[in-house]
Amino acid sequence: MSTEAEIIAVGSELLTAGKVDTNSLFLTGELNGIGIEVVRKIVVGDDRARLADSVRSAVGRSAIVILTGGLGPTEDDVTRDAVAAALDRELVFSEEVCNAIRARFRSFGRRMAEVNKRQAFVIAGAEVLANPRGTAPGLWVDTGPAVVALLPGPPGELMPLFAEECIPRLRAKFGSRAIRTRFFRATGIGEGDLDQIIAPVYTRYRNPVTTILASSGDIQIHLRAQADSEAEAERLLDEVAGQILPLLGDNVYSRDGAPLEVMIGNALRERRQTLSVAESCTGGLLGGRVTVVPGSSDYFRGGFLTYTDEMKTALLGVPAELIAAHTAVSEAVARAMAEGARQRTGADYALSVTGYAGPGGGTAENPVGTVFVGLAMPESTTARRLRLPGDRERIRGFAVQNALDMLRRALGL
Amino acid sequence: MSTEAEIIAVGSELLTAGKVDTNSLFLTGELNGIGIEVVRKIVVGDDRARLADSVRSAVGRSAIVILTGGLGPTEDDVTRDAVAAALDRELVFSEEVCNAIRARFRSFGRRMAEVNKRQAFVIAGAEVLANPRGTAPGLWVDTGPAVVALLPGPPGELMPLFAEECIPRLRAKFGSRAIRTRFFRATGIGEGDLDQIIAPVYTRYRNPVTTILASSGDIQIHLRAQADSEAEAERLLDEVAGQILPLLGDNVYSRDGAPLEVMIGNALRERRQTLSVAESCTGGLLGGRVTVVPGSSDYFRGGFLTYTDEMKTALLGVPAELIAAHTAVSEAVARAMAEGARQRTGADYALSVTGYAGPGGGTAENPVGTVFVGLAMPESTTARRLRLPGDRERIRGFAVQNALDMLRRALGL
Repeated sequence: MSTEAEIIAVGSELLTAGKVDTNSLFLTGELNGIGIEVVRKIVVGDDRARLADSVRSAVGRSAIVILTGGLGPTEDDVTRDAVAAALDRELVFSEEVCNAIRARFRSFGRRMAEVNKRQAFVIAGAEVLANPRGTAPGLWVDTGPAVVALLPGPPGELMPLFAEECIPRLRAKFGSRAIRTRFFRATGIGEGDLDQIIAPVYTRYRNPVTTILASSGDIQIHLRAQADSEAEAERLLDEVAGQILPLLGDNVYSRDGAPLEVMIGNALRERRQTLSVAESCTGGLLGGRVTVVPGSSDYFRGGFLTYTDEMKTALLGVPAELIAAHTAVSEAVARAMAEGARQRTGADYALSVTGYAGPGGGTAENPVGTVFVGLAMPESTTARRLRLPGDRERIRGFAVQNALDMLRRALGL
Repeated sequence: MSTEAEIIAVGSELLTAGKVDTNSLFLTGELNGIGIEVVRKIVVGDDRARLADSVRSAVGRSAIVILTGGLGPTEDDVTRDAVAAALDRELVFSEEVCNAIRARFRSFGRRMAEVNKRQAFVIAGAEVLANPRGTAPGLWVDTGPAVVALLPGPPGELMPLFAEECIPRLRAKFGSRAIRTRFFRATGIGEGDLDQIIAPVYTRYRNPVTTILASSGDIQIHLRAQADSEAEAERLLDEVAGQILPLLGDNVYSRDGAPLEVMIGNALRERRQTLSVAESCTGGLLGGRVTVVPGSSDYFRGGFLTYTDEMKTALLGVPAELIAAHTAVSEAVARAMAEGARQRTGADYALSVTGYAGPGGGTAENPVGTVFVGLAMPESTTARRLRLPGDRERIRGFAVQNALDMLRRALGL
């Protein structure tokens, strides 16, 4: 088992609807980097009793407890007090720390306010972590089984203090194991179906840990292995990945975490081929996603947003009779849109999307969620009918994903 | 004292360095809106024992415990199990829930995977909260002193489920003081500048509470007043809004929270006018945002994604000489793009965007972040040069916002 850490972010502002604790992201990355796993993150307001309660629980179960924030000079900065109470230790005034704070103010030509003396109280037995970038020093308390670190909240103070003062102490106390990760992406399969296929493999392993995330039809598979050596961690990853990947076949499109639009873009750039789009219900989201990638102008020529039947005819040359015969949400129109875009832009490939994103619209035969994606290629044109779940936003997101996946498979990726 | 809530976000991915729990922001806003305070937020991984431990502690001290995530069909979805264990209740298979899940799959022409049956287990005594937007239903457990809600993690499922199913139940159980809110939106001004202008007003009031949120140049101003009567809460809101709004002038575009694309859409529909777009660096995001609005086909005709110089000439008729003389990122080309789109679509208005979204590109005179937005109208054409901050994603988001704001002001909204 790896060493486990909890992060406690202190501050009532972090319990409002507008603000989220982001310091923990930095801390998590740093901790993972030395083989320490974050198992819990807690946000508590500026409330002495609640915070002390949280610290007491955390120290009772995890080897490392990192607190951020609440070290300022005001009444509602309660971290020092609360941790002292939780650990049953005294707070001791430190003349030395006070002098350092006073010197810092003096260096800006200012006088230390009386309230800043609060920042010179130190938990008995704690090491003071000098913070040259702010007035509040950090504190490091080693209780034997556990360590508790109190760090200032401003990221510009927290980050260097943690890297310079805490990481070396953690390494010295807990050693450090090697951590290696793999990151695959798959599409064209539901999350539940995918899990059913690979769970029999990954549930047999506690190491590596497997995490599956899905969004708009894009499924991320993360593996994380810990071992005494990097080679051993890689071997564990090979063992599990070597069983999972064959089960998923060509649904896996990325073995390094690169998203669909990047994989497609790289292939097109390499082959000196180009892409255009013709969008109806997605209204630009497909082009928007293709152009998320910096440098996409190397292969993306542009396209057409044809939101009305009239525009499909005027801009893409889709015959009005074809629309009349099949409706705009049909395989025939999806094919004609793709061909029209390909011809008019001179691109090698053109993707099209036409469908009912809802909430209104749709027919008995083609209800809301019905989307046709088309692909015109140098030699041929193809189209597919999809039935997509969810609300307007999800249907549009799935439609974009399916269109890109159609191209990905055509490119043999 | 107000009623207290804790939020527990479940998911190992929320304990990685790349991902932060944002559902809690929405939940906090909603809970605050009915007078309930969030006193603790916890993130736990997909670990049954740790989660059960967190739930047990939370239920022991707070009246309301809301869990998000971990309701999926896979092995690592442990929320149902862990809460059942923490509350010492059984998990019971529900034929009814299973049938609903199966019917949902069938409606997409798919078969339910065997693993999805896991989602049909219900904590004994819990109410099932139907989730028409996903397979995992929510669960609502009333233990007498406390309530525990289990909600799906995807925001598109969580948000409506919470608003529709949980808010009424919380109101019924915990009563609530009269709470009234106002929700304004502003744009065309920086968040910091806006705050500097109105902070002297709102900081004088603890009631209503004022919250300011900004995203891609769109600023939301929320006021929330609590009082013994609705009339008194409204009076408090009038008092503060009556001072804030005049300070912000025509930067305020919405007094009911309706976003920019909705305000514009409503005006165009009412006036029976139409819109088209011509996008370069935004690649479809402007069209994508216009068509976020259901029924936008009433006024959005479509547009052109012209990602290369050649396409600007071929699809929009921008003279190659004009591009050669001014470069594609210029006021002249922005105007020509807008006029080309307006002419070719027959729309009353056409918006254009051309710029350097980065990270590559740009010139000494027009570095990355330089974007021109153009607007062709029945009587005239106009264009504006913008210098936008941030990375590629932010620049593109700001560009879309600025283009829409240009149209908003032209429409006199």
